[in-house]
Amino acid sequence: MDFINAIESLWKKNESLVCVGLDPDINKIPVHIRSMDAPIFEFNRAIIDATGDLVCAYKPQIAYYASSRAEQQLEKTIEYIHKNFPGIPVILDAKRGDIGSTAEMYAKEAFERYQADAVTVNPYMGGDTLEPFLKHKNRGVAILCRTSNPGAREIQDLESGGEKIYRIIAARASREWNYNGNVMLVVGATYPDELKTVRDIVGDLPLLVPGIGAQGGDVEKAVKNGRNSKGAGMIINSSRGIIYAGAGKDFAEAARTAAMELRQEINRYR
Amino acid sequence: MDFINAIESLWKKNESLVCVGLDPDINKIPVHIRSMDAPIFEFNRAIIDATGDLVCAYKPQIAYYASSRAEQQLEKTIEYIHKNFPGIPVILDAKRGDIGSTAEMYAKEAFERYQADAVTVNPYMGGDTLEPFLKHKNRGVAILCRTSNPGAREIQDLESGGEKIYRIIAARASREWNYNGNVMLVVGATYPDELKTVRDIVGDLPLLVPGIGAQGGDVEKAVKNGRNSKGAGMIINSSRGIIYAGAGKDFAEAARTAAMELRQEINRYR
Repeated sequence: MDFINAIESLWKKNESLVCVGLDPDINKIPVHIRSMDAPIFEFNRAIIDATGDLVCAYKPQIAYYASSRAEQQLEKTIEYIHKNFPGIPVILDAKRGDIGSTAEMYAKEAFERYQADAVTVNPYMGGDTLEPFLKHKNRGVAILCRTSNPGAREIQDLESGGEKIYRIIAARASREWNYNGNVMLVVGATYPDELKTVRDIVGDLPLLVPGIGAQGGDVEKAVKNGRNSKGAGMIINSSRGIIYAGAGKDFAEAARTAAMELRQEINRYR
Repeated sequence: MDFINAIESLWKKNESLVCVGLDPDINKIPVHIRSMDAPIFEFNRAIIDATGDLVCAYKPQIAYYASSRAEQQLEKTIEYIHKNFPGIPVILDAKRGDIGSTAEMYAKEAFERYQADAVTVNPYMGGDTLEPFLKHKNRGVAILCRTSNPGAREIQDLESGGEKIYRIIAARASREWNYNGNVMLVVGATYPDELKTVRDIVGDLPLLVPGIGAQGGDVEKAVKNGRNSKGAGMIINSSRGIIYAGAGKDFAEAARTAAMELRQEINRYR
């Protein structure tokens, strides 16, 4: 699978910019699942089955698995998606970043061990630390640019030569680091003005956009400010708003309804 | 164990600023170990037994374990150090960084699952994303400042208001983020001038210093520029230079010799 091609197909085929964040907290998943053998995988499987025709991607956040000694369930989850919903890419949200020899190991973790189709990375250490990821032409690399949290402005908004750091990252990512055409940028929906700024810098480059839902990002503003010239170009992630839409035995149906509603709301403004 | 106290005791007790980086690549460890049941753990155990009286800390880099599906061997390694060399702290090199709810999970991974005494983190997302780590008063938090790789200057040396980003990070880390007295900064030995600059900003704050050995950092310059007012304040990491000092059956003895030599060379300039 070529990540960028896969995403572009799904935007059309599923008419969807929705990405479901698979961030299962064992203390928040429905009680009747917690006692199963592989509760996190079983929870994910139900969510995936219920939403596979509504999304353009899935994005598991690795900390939710690593903190619970559940790496195997993450492997099984990604394998399940690839087997049962071929063509839907999986973005491993890991925000890795390290010197070259170690970054090679992180790339191996994401692309070989987990078979992820894309990974999120942190640019603070510089372009040479991204190279071990970028050289995988068929995998997507989502570089942190302007994140969704309140403290994002602390470093990312510092000005250098009249440009804020996140704008410098956006320019460098789209002009220097995208030599294999596999770069995306992470920009939070909680900052619609900055989303517009990034879109203006990067042309049609795909943006991975967290911050909708629990974090308070407004869908209309995010889509109007973040869409590209083709009314797409965004992978809009919702985790808690979809996976915890219901808490009982009907949690998967509730997740489906939430994903449909989000897809519809997004499409209204594309 | 309180991390900062433990480090300060070891600097005296073992007369050592040496930290051994436990970054075992299965393709580089001695052939006679590769066929064992838990080769990475067995390799680490031999290195630890041979160097436990010569170091102030151990630093496993998590990517070397995660890429090989060897999380259990990392757990066993840290447990082995705590049991057999009580008082020697373990710094989990993971360079984590994410929004609050996810950072909580990463802190759980480092401090609960792995029982690490300290962890490395990336400041690009802002101070609020460091809080889930910093609030653990007895654990050390090593914040990336000026890294050892060639591309470090790309983002870290951008100037904002007349100050380079890494200097801004150094100032903020020592003045704002150190409210629990558990902050360290990561500064590469490959940039001795920047090491001096950071030392001047942060007073006696501990610095975690990679880049000696395989990466080309000069010990004399690093120590003279990085030591604090007490001739200590540095955790100087060597990975490949120690763990791969020998390739045969005597690899552990070779590692011991390399660690002794590094300790001695460092102490000459303290």
